[in-house]
Amino acid sequence: MTRFAVWAPSAATAEVEVDGVRHAMHHAGRPGWWEAAVDTSADSDYAFVLDSGAPLPDPRSPWQPHGVHGPSRLVDHAAFPWSDEGWRGLPLPGAVLYELHVGTFTSAGTFAAAVDRLDHLVDLGVDCVEVMPVAAFPGRHGWGYDGVALWAVHEPYGGPIGFKQFVDACHARNIGVVLDVVYNHLGPSGNYLDRFGPYFTRRHTTPWGTAVNLADAGSDEVRRFIIDNAVMWLRDYHLDGLRLDAVHALVDERATHLLEQLAVEVDALASAVRRPLFLIAESDLNDARLVTPRQSGGYGLTAQWDDDIHHALHALLTGERQGYYADFGSLACLATTLQRVFWHAGTWSSFRGRTHGRPVDVDVFPAYRFLAYLQNHDQVGNRAAGDRLSATLSPELLKVGAALVLTAPYTPMLFMGEEWGAATPWQFFTDHQEAALAAAVREGRRAEFARHGWDAADVPDPQAPSTVERSRLDWAEPTRQPHADVLDFYRRLIALRREVPALTDPRLNRLQVRYDEEAQWLVVHRGRLRVVVNLAVHRQAVPVDGAPTAVLLASSSATCLDRAVQLDGPAVAIVELA
Amino acid sequence: MTRFAVWAPSAATAEVEVDGVRHAMHHAGRPGWWEAAVDTSADSDYAFVLDSGAPLPDPRSPWQPHGVHGPSRLVDHAAFPWSDEGWRGLPLPGAVLYELHVGTFTSAGTFAAAVDRLDHLVDLGVDCVEVMPVAAFPGRHGWGYDGVALWAVHEPYGGPIGFKQFVDACHARNIGVVLDVVYNHLGPSGNYLDRFGPYFTRRHTTPWGTAVNLADAGSDEVRRFIIDNAVMWLRDYHLDGLRLDAVHALVDERATHLLEQLAVEVDALASAVRRPLFLIAESDLNDARLVTPRQSGGYGLTAQWDDDIHHALHALLTGERQGYYADFGSLACLATTLQRVFWHAGTWSSFRGRTHGRPVDVDVFPAYRFLAYLQNHDQVGNRAAGDRLSATLSPELLKVGAALVLTAPYTPMLFMGEEWGAATPWQFFTDHQEAALAAAVREGRRAEFARHGWDAADVPDPQAPSTVERSRLDWAEPTRQPHADVLDFYRRLIALRREVPALTDPRLNRLQVRYDEEAQWLVVHRGRLRVVVNLAVHRQAVPVDGAPTAVLLASSSATCLDRAVQLDGPAVAIVELA
Repeated sequence: MTRFAVWAPSAATAEVEVDGVRHAMHHAGRPGWWEAAVDTSADSDYAFVLDSGAPLPDPRSPWQPHGVHGPSRLVDHAAFPWSDEGWRGLPLPGAVLYELHVGTFTSAGTFAAAVDRLDHLVDLGVDCVEVMPVAAFPGRHGWGYDGVALWAVHEPYGGPIGFKQFVDACHARNIGVVLDVVYNHLGPSGNYLDRFGPYFTRRHTTPWGTAVNLADAGSDEVRRFIIDNAVMWLRDYHLDGLRLDAVHALVDERATHLLEQLAVEVDALASAVRRPLFLIAESDLNDARLVTPRQSGGYGLTAQWDDDIHHALHALLTGERQGYYADFGSLACLATTLQRVFWHAGTWSSFRGRTHGRPVDVDVFPAYRFLAYLQNHDQVGNRAAGDRLSATLSPELLKVGAALVLTAPYTPMLFMGEEWGAATPWQFFTDHQEAALAAAVREGRRAEFARHGWDAADVPDPQAPSTVERSRLDWAEPTRQPHADVLDFYRRLIALRREVPALTDPRLNRLQVRYDEEAQWLVVHRGRLRVVVNLAVHRQAVPVDGAPTAVLLASSSATCLDRAVQLDGPAVAIVELA
Repeated sequence: MTRFAVWAPSAATAEVEVDGVRHAMHHAGRPGWWEAAVDTSADSDYAFVLDSGAPLPDPRSPWQPHGVHGPSRLVDHAAFPWSDEGWRGLPLPGAVLYELHVGTFTSAGTFAAAVDRLDHLVDLGVDCVEVMPVAAFPGRHGWGYDGVALWAVHEPYGGPIGFKQFVDACHARNIGVVLDVVYNHLGPSGNYLDRFGPYFTRRHTTPWGTAVNLADAGSDEVRRFIIDNAVMWLRDYHLDGLRLDAVHALVDERATHLLEQLAVEVDALASAVRRPLFLIAESDLNDARLVTPRQSGGYGLTAQWDDDIHHALHALLTGERQGYYADFGSLACLATTLQRVFWHAGTWSSFRGRTHGRPVDVDVFPAYRFLAYLQNHDQVGNRAAGDRLSATLSPELLKVGAALVLTAPYTPMLFMGEEWGAATPWQFFTDHQEAALAAAVREGRRAEFARHGWDAADVPDPQAPSTVERSRLDWAEPTRQPHADVLDFYRRLIALRREVPALTDPRLNRLQVRYDEEAQWLVVHRGRLRVVVNLAVHRQAVPVDGAPTAVLLASSSATCLDRAVQLDGPAVAIVELA
């Protein structure tokens, strides 16, 4: 006997269809909720029928074995044979994250295939994978931000059991798992939520469609839908944290913002399960209120992405100044951003056509609350050709970038393949099943880049099977040069970060950065360590503020001089002062 | 020679037309701004011409002598003969406010006529008038929330000079002046702002039209427009504060909310002019973040309206439960609201169909940061017939309501005429000049109330001259009974509030309220004073927690008994305990 329940406040009648048989549902307790107890078997399919209409998948469906348009199936979470009893969770401070897209991490594009590559991550030394969205979406391929069945794991990846096996395998290797979840919009196809209730509002819009209803009538249940979903992932899939997509598109005028309410409940769950659970926001607000403790008027999230660090690094290393890179690129910009979290901290953003952001109190905020990355799925995939930094930069410059991220006080994150300077691109790919939608996405992509001077022929067709194929990691690469050399440098960097406490010291007011814009060098102070960067093409002696006694790691030959380090150009060395 | 300037970032050419002659404007310094220096006389009219189009009034026009569609005129603010050198400003704590609509405060509906009635306010004892919006709008009559020339004073009220004379006359009588300003939308006619720049955004909507652009491209200048406007009123009109209309409709995702930025700049101005300047928000958010100090993550406004106190009183005294009164009405509700600021503090709001609000820390927040009122323009005027409480309640119940507001720790505010239980209604009136707009407003009003069972014939026509005439105060009333008696009680209450420090003690955690829902009595503790309310229709002895020794004020005969006060019903007495 299974007790089905669904929130459908406007329906006059509701039924649950189990294995083709409809059963009347009744109001029972919670306003707007319908319930029915029906005999089921382990592989029963079910759907809800409102007002005698067509069967609809459960908004909280844990499994969509036939795709997002088909019926739902129950999952007995308690039945999974977890082997991670010994897992005590992962504290975010000090951790190194690794962003991974299940569909392109391996050729098979499944959790099972990803498990086979986990030892690579162990060897690399990362602490936690950040899995791009796995909520079910239509078609086979996609980035995952078009998810519509937010409680179900995408079947082509391996479904609910596949994901649990993946998490279990990560934990067995002492690797945590963070999942990317999207609560600000739903994908354009297969979204049946509005048939059930007021999940969306017309008062606000997002770049991706109707905004979720967080403050209008009925929004209590919409918020519960989101928060219960977050709790479900953390509890039933043993996750260590969530990455919250584009929180700036969660427009919530309520006195308690959804993110604060979510953080309160996740903190309570963490106490209950007795392991750390973290919430990491993707935010373009440059506003530390997200990670400010609730006692101080913040929302109390654990951390947030910091695109300014990416932009400062990317513009400096590539020389690109298009679009949102316009205000970045100098050593001064990188130095300021490293020391003060945000470059746009109440300052003019020419890309936005307005001032942006707010200063962070560096005496108060531990740096681990901000994520730093040289690349991520967006920064690679949203380029017209999805080309990684390795397409533009020499291995030596890739190492400079890596060293700056992995010695910074922030929480570093790599994007899969970055660690060996993968030559494969990571492009925008979709698998929309409706011809009109497929055409709209294809044309939209071309039009977007045509505005920036791209020829349509050079913008990959998101719907073409070759686009996703091209975006898969090539696991033959890491053993070949120059990839093996880059990979070795990343391994050593991460190992050094683990060994030397100064490299994870989160105190921003201890961080000093010196640089010479003309000579093109920069030195980051980390305790007694100096991260010495020569960005010039020629060899030079970079001055340091003491006597360098040992080179802990260098991307080329580095020589300790008297109060200077001599380096090839471009190169980086991590040295210890006397 | 006058230097004209206007922000018009998209215009290819700009001219200023002065007394019929066009002069080319040029870019000079600030991006998007055009400037020209032109010879003018004191009564020169001017307008801006963009891209050789029709002349447009100045977005920052200080004077629209020919109405909002016509040319602008300069105002030499320094030339006004102020006589308020001795005015040292008004601190909000302890003050009693008086909301006043210039157009209906007197028969003439002008500032000059209002000045002639100021001695009534002196006699009443209020400290500050809160003037409903005076920004210029089309037509002659209106509430003022359809303003479109936000820097100009409505000409039919007396224009810029009339308003200054009014403020000067108030200050001469030791009365402060707060102005109601509307920054969340502009009126439907005469709004030329979007011809000049991106003043509006399509990403959000308000109940009254397009939302103001606070966070998109160009919004720095839109924010400056608002903040400069606020500063202009406070500085050039010697105002003591501003009442910010419907701040919940100011959707601002920026890291620093417009209201915080505004509060920072107004606080700086207060230091410069060396007198208190306050900002009072009208907010339906039930969120004390507005009045939380900035050091604690708040916006640092001075105060905010508190509709929950109104609703608790109104529903209790009238028995009404329609619309937003649904969750109010019990003595328990009033007691809780008086003690905790908000009734909806994370609790279910049936009117909104969701939970609402957030608790206020009563150990921290001084009560004067919240405004309490038995009536205000909205609560009267938004009723179908614009009937005041006096149409429903006996003078005795009016006095009970007045006593509860004027002995509460909150900042009390009266609505003009309330002090004598005015029999005149205060209805919704407009004077739209476009036939289609007039019809839409008339029909919209009827349709709104038809939904609540009102016959169209019983809903006054907003456009009818009789509607505004009917809404004017009748100054023959206050000398007649029962009005004179009500007025005398208000005077005594306000005088008592001034005399007895316990009545303005803002400490919420000192406020005790005892009540008996069945016996229908309630006692509010204010230091050694007890505000004893008998809501029953019969005489009863209301128990108090000590020996009452003196009746300081009572609405009917009150007798001190042993640990009780005997009162007619309904009635209120303020007594002192031994």
